[in-house]
Amino acid sequence: METPLRYGNCFEDFQPGQVFRHATPRTVTDGDSAVYTALTGTRVLCHSSEMAARQLGYAGRPLDDLLVFNIAFGKTVPDISLNAVANLGYADVRFLAPVYAGDTLSAESTVIGVKENASSPSGVVYVLSVCRNQHGACVLSWVRWVMVRKRDADAPAPVALVPKLPLAVAPGQLVAAPSIRTADALETWCRASGSRRLWGDFIAGQRIDHPCGMTIEEADHMSATRLYQNNARVHFDAIHMRDSATARRLVYGGHVISVCRALSHDGLENVLSVLAINGGRHVAPTVAGDTLYACSEVMERLTLPQRQDVGALRLRLLGLKNVAPADVDVLRGADGKQYHPAVVLDLDYTVAVPAGSLAGR
Amino acid sequence: METPLRYGNCFEDFQPGQVFRHATPRTVTDGDSAVYTALTGTRVLCHSSEMAARQLGYAGRPLDDLLVFNIAFGKTVPDISLNAVANLGYADVRFLAPVYAGDTLSAESTVIGVKENASSPSGVVYVLSVCRNQHGACVLSWVRWVMVRKRDADAPAPVALVPKLPLAVAPGQLVAAPSIRTADALETWCRASGSRRLWGDFIAGQRIDHPCGMTIEEADHMSATRLYQNNARVHFDAIHMRDSATARRLVYGGHVISVCRALSHDGLENVLSVLAINGGRHVAPTVAGDTLYACSEVMERLTLPQRQDVGALRLRLLGLKNVAPADVDVLRGADGKQYHPAVVLDLDYTVAVPAGSLAGR
Amino acid sequence: METPLRYGNCFEDFQPGQVFRHATPRTVTDGDSAVYTALTGTRVLCHSSEMAARQLGYAGRPLDDLLVFNIAFGKTVPDISLNAVANLGYADVRFLAPVYAGDTLSAESTVIGVKENASSPSGVVYVLSVCRNQHGACVLSWVRWVMVRKRDADAPAPVALVPKLPLAVAPGQLVAAPSIRTADALETWCRASGSRRLWGDFIAGQRIDHPCGMTIEEADHMSATRLYQNNARVHFDAIHMRDSATARRLVYGGHVISVCRALSHDGLENVLSVLAINGGRHVAPTVAGDTLYACSEVMERLTLPQRQDVGALRLRLLGLKNVAPADVDVLRGADGKQYHPAVVLDLDYTVAVPAGSLAGR
Repeated sequence: METPLRYGNCFEDFQPGQVFRHATPRTVTDGDSAVYTALTGTRVLCHSSEMAARQLGYAGRPLDDLLVFNIAFGKTVPDISLNAVANLGYADVRFLAPVYAGDTLSAESTVIGVKENASSPSGVVYVLSVCRNQHGACVLSWVRWVMVRKRDADAPAPVALVPKLPLAVAPGQLVAAPSIRTADALETWCRASGSRRLWGDFIAGQRIDHPCGMTIEEADHMSATRLYQNNARVHFDAIHMRDSATARRLVYGGHVISVCRALSHDGLENVLSVLAINGGRHVAPTVAGDTLYACSEVMERLTLPQRQDVGALRLRLLGLKNVAPADVDVLRGADGKQYHPAVVLDLDYTVAVPAGSLAGR
Repeated sequence: METPLRYGNCFEDFQPGQVFRHATPRTVTDGDSAVYTALTGTRVLCHSSEMAARQLGYAGRPLDDLLVFNIAFGKTVPDISLNAVANLGYADVRFLAPVYAGDTLSAESTVIGVKENASSPSGVVYVLSVCRNQHGACVLSWVRWVMVRKRDADAPAPVALVPKLPLAVAPGQLVAAPSIRTADALETWCRASGSRRLWGDFIAGQRIDHPCGMTIEEADHMSATRLYQNNARVHFDAIHMRDSATARRLVYGGHVISVCRALSHDGLENVLSVLAINGGRHVAPTVAGDTLYACSEVMERLTLPQRQDVGALRLRLLGLKNVAPADVDVLRGADGKQYHPAVVLDLDYTVAVPAGSLAGR
Repeated sequence: METPLRYGNCFEDFQPGQVFRHATPRTVTDGDSAVYTALTGTRVLCHSSEMAARQLGYAGRPLDDLLVFNIAFGKTVPDISLNAVANLGYADVRFLAPVYAGDTLSAESTVIGVKENASSPSGVVYVLSVCRNQHGACVLSWVRWVMVRKRDADAPAPVALVPKLPLAVAPGQLVAAPSIRTADALETWCRASGSRRLWGDFIAGQRIDHPCGMTIEEADHMSATRLYQNNARVHFDAIHMRDSATARRLVYGGHVISVCRALSHDGLENVLSVLAINGGRHVAPTVAGDTLYACSEVMERLTLPQRQDVGALRLRLLGLKNVAPADVDVLRGADGKQYHPAVVLDLDYTVAVPAGSLAGR
């Protein structure tokens, strides 16, 4: 009557429509925020200052959006991606409600697509995941697709189903929790953020080379990944990874995103919150010893329905390893797919920024 | 009138009956839990989720049992083991009450045995330690014995006194705080833990090779040991350790236990809490760069007096370095003492698990 | 209308009287304290135990004084010292009010002096900084001076202005928050601290060689510096630092102070709080791989106005790298400026200690 030890699912274990209620709900705390700060150096204002957060109408200091993303993502790993060959991409990631210390998060995923690879004993699995708080409110939803190996190379291929995914989360679906109610509130915010560059001051096509870099240590990326209770072996087990392509433990992609976003703070000081990740790719692996840099491209300015106080910016966050962006002229080819060899991350995301323009005032 | 700087006790400083009230009580917080998660990756459900903990009847999310053990242990180090040559073993470790964020822990030890070594200028000291919260309630008690060097090799040997220690904490002395009050509660628990393997599904003699491994970094083990305010020099001072047997800083044994327990979560998802450590040995040293793996042997199923909802399992947790358990046929010799050279930890402990059997349902 | 990306100020950007309201206020939490403990191993009693803190009349467990100092300092970095060639010194650092979990700290600096260097395209900038909590109360004020490079070597030199700084914070300006109201309270304190060495037991001229050492890892010092949201590139970017004098990332000086103070706990167990830093110098750089040791010299015993229960000690904390103080006879030359080559830190500071003498009782 023994339940066998199960360690992750293989490609043939996934069927469209299948629902996974992921294990180990997590109560998040100020402690998690402190560790996240220590591992990323984040300075996003409304996650740093309770006063600033309350001035935006939050009930308290919300946890960093990407901390929530990484914890929620971590929950899905044992069921979805423990046997993943590669985490291929993200789409339609929506940040729907703020998360506060004391909230308990749990996650659930539905398989929305499968497609066997012709060339290797593996396939691509598409899942739609949602993360809820203890009240059942959805705080985050996202789609990702991963390449998962087959248990049995000869197992028959399932009928291919590839979901249609939006190129970007539509403005009407963006939920901007923060509000700036008065001119005084805006002034207070800008004084605290240290920047007067507002929504109206960004220009589509503009590129911002963020000046800082951060060298990644094994202890740092493993601590971050453990904080997220993400137990994927590739991040932790040096012996297991000896014969892999990198011959090293891989830095969890979510840590790369978190570090690059923290590096991008210099130049984007007035970001209020992350509204969406429209799409994202880990273009190349990062390992300990690499130094990460970040560059942002302003893709477009978006207005939010019925909001005068806050606008949205669609940004492209490019993460580079071992080369500062100021030393690179062309980061991507014209097709948007050919990358400079230093690029490790290409993240298309949307953030809330105070409306208006104060530049030069 | 100057009090000389004292740095730890030597063998001749210990007399049976002597009581040490250890310095530096510690208020534990959610911050400590977050750091512990970041350093071990623990996913024990009732320490992760406040909702799950409350459903078991806890007043809140209790701190991880081994976090409490390591903090309490750390308190005893300056008086007991700063000059220890080796931490020889643990016995009769009882987890008596849950510890919550905000509790203040203090520790006290009584010398219960001394025995000089014939072969070297050192001796074995046995201490019974207790850890109390701010209300004076005992949350943990344990016996350990350490080999301590003599200050003066020619000091006369004391009368040998070796305490009688139980081979295991008796079921009647186990205190299982969590309770599962209804079938619904059990169902909710299993959904959150992600496993339906209950007490009745474990079989004495069964071996569980836990699939994950974790490579240990200097920063990780030192951070854990500092979190416990354990200041034993062997863990921190690379120069001091240059001429030691390992020529390296030693990983604190309590961190090895914590990591191995975290690794053992895959296969033991339904452990509710640790009730006792019956005995434990650090079979070989661990140093940074080693990759730890874990294997559990089910020793026996125990019923708890007057409890239908929760049973106990006595487990043997074996920690290995640099070899995955799946690659090792025989971990211990028939005498229970000869170990495979990869084994670093042999921990005999007892945990609470929901009663019944859901396997196959 | 684009606001250009600004990355730190150069020497010619500073004028006497100029005020910087630094960005990113920070709400501090128990999580920050836990991370600080994990990174330094601090065992200062009233930061470790809420019970001990309340017995001293605190409203709760105050955050470690140096954690507050480092967070406040970190706030000033983007405006003051991002382009610093060297952090030359501190003076007149006053700890004015306890900081509790939940407080929100912000910082402001006024330029109080500038002096161009004759020999290099740089100059010294003196700033007076203050850190306030959410109620506007000043919790910390300090002066520091940094060498900052010029943007344009040919820019004309400003009129030199060098502020007069006190050699030490005068006893009348020291604010000792903790109080020891009864003999019982003193007894309780000493039992918890583990030491009976009080104010009257210290002797001017006395030297205390603290026994422990701590090897610094890259992950440790970077995590500490990130915890303080200090983004100075020299601590994080290995590629940027390749061509520097050390060819390595530099350990942030505030982390060196925190580690040395934690190491100095053995011998100074009864320190209640830090009242002032009279002066401080980072004598030599510290890099990962260095092992830090600490030595304290008792400079003088000071009485606090109208306080019988608590006295002050002026101490000199010397930090050493890779040599234990017990192996060094002379740490400083008679002029107080020539240092043994192992010395990295010379910190002149004042602490509160329970009055009286219990030694030998």
